[in-house]
Amino acid sequence: MDLSTLFKITYGMYIVSSKNGDKINAQLSNTVVQISPEPATMLISVSKKNLTHEFIEKSGVFTINIISDLCEMTDIGMFGFRTGRDFNKFESCKYKLGKNGAPIILDKMVGYVECEVINTVDCGSHTVFIGKVTDTEMINSDLEPMTYDYYFKTLKGKLSKNATHYQKPE
Amino acid sequence: MDLSTLFKITYGMYIVSSKNGDKINAQLSNTVVQISPEPATMLISVSKKNLTHEFIEKSGVFTINIISDLCEMTDIGMFGFRTGRDFNKFESCKYKLGKNGAPIILDKMVGYVECEVINTVDCGSHTVFIGKVTDTEMINSDLEPMTYDYYFKTLKGKLSKNATHYQKPE
Repeated sequence: MDLSTLFKITYGMYIVSSKNGDKINAQLSNTVVQISPEPATMLISVSKKNLTHEFIEKSGVFTINIISDLCEMTDIGMFGFRTGRDFNKFESCKYKLGKNGAPIILDKMVGYVECEVINTVDCGSHTVFIGKVTDTEMINSDLEPMTYDYYFKTLKGKLSKNATHYQKPE
Repeated sequence: MDLSTLFKITYGMYIVSSKNGDKINAQLSNTVVQISPEPATMLISVSKKNLTHEFIEKSGVFTINIISDLCEMTDIGMFGFRTGRDFNKFESCKYKLGKNGAPIILDKMVGYVECEVINTVDCGSHTVFIGKVTDTEMINSDLEPMTYDYYFKTLKGKLSKNATHYQKPE
């Protein structure tokens, strides 16, 4: 079978944030979908290696920040490829804490979706977190959401080894 | 909260097919993601009202057909908004049966992903089916996958009342 076919699945680009007590963290993600309308329910898949995974497990909350295509790698790169364990990803980033306590990123973002975990599915290397939407607002509805295709082809974004669609070089 | 924010989530457009004995059916879907890399695992969310839902539950298999942006509404419209209960969706459509028995659509498609259900999550109006990839091939890798945005804005595709992001008019 030709696993490169899986690269033809369409995704957007998001920063998924969470908290753990008074600590906050966030990571780049493309694996975000709405899975049911009423109540509005979102689903994300997160690598077990990521600090954000630990934070979501402990706090039971996450927030999906919808990145716009105004963003450059300098705006979002710090949220990927580095761990929040030894680096403050929010140092140069304008944000506020949401109602669920997870950070909402404010610059060049389309909007955000705050969620409360209602179910989890163990998927080996990754956990699927299913979250009920507890709040969602536009930040700038005139902006276009960034697609994964744009991130990859135009921004020359790299594929994380913890991505759900990572394939080991042969 | 402003639920219109949820329309800013990015999706692709797919035809999800399945079988039940010697019967086949398929439906339009935007809710398709890869949730883990090894083994490659896909996730879809399907309305319980749909015949394809019944077929996936019974057969334990589904196939994701990746629609290209060469498709017009006349190529894909018959897979949405009508039920396969009283209408043969495949009458004017070139297809073959895959290894899992579900139909693979051949014209103007980028490729396909055959899956075997390994887990299901009840999400009220919808069921999330998690499927291990059992086969996947390109049909035409030069074609661009159709995005939901293109379907909605360029093809003027309608929002199904059974979509995961459907919102009742106020």
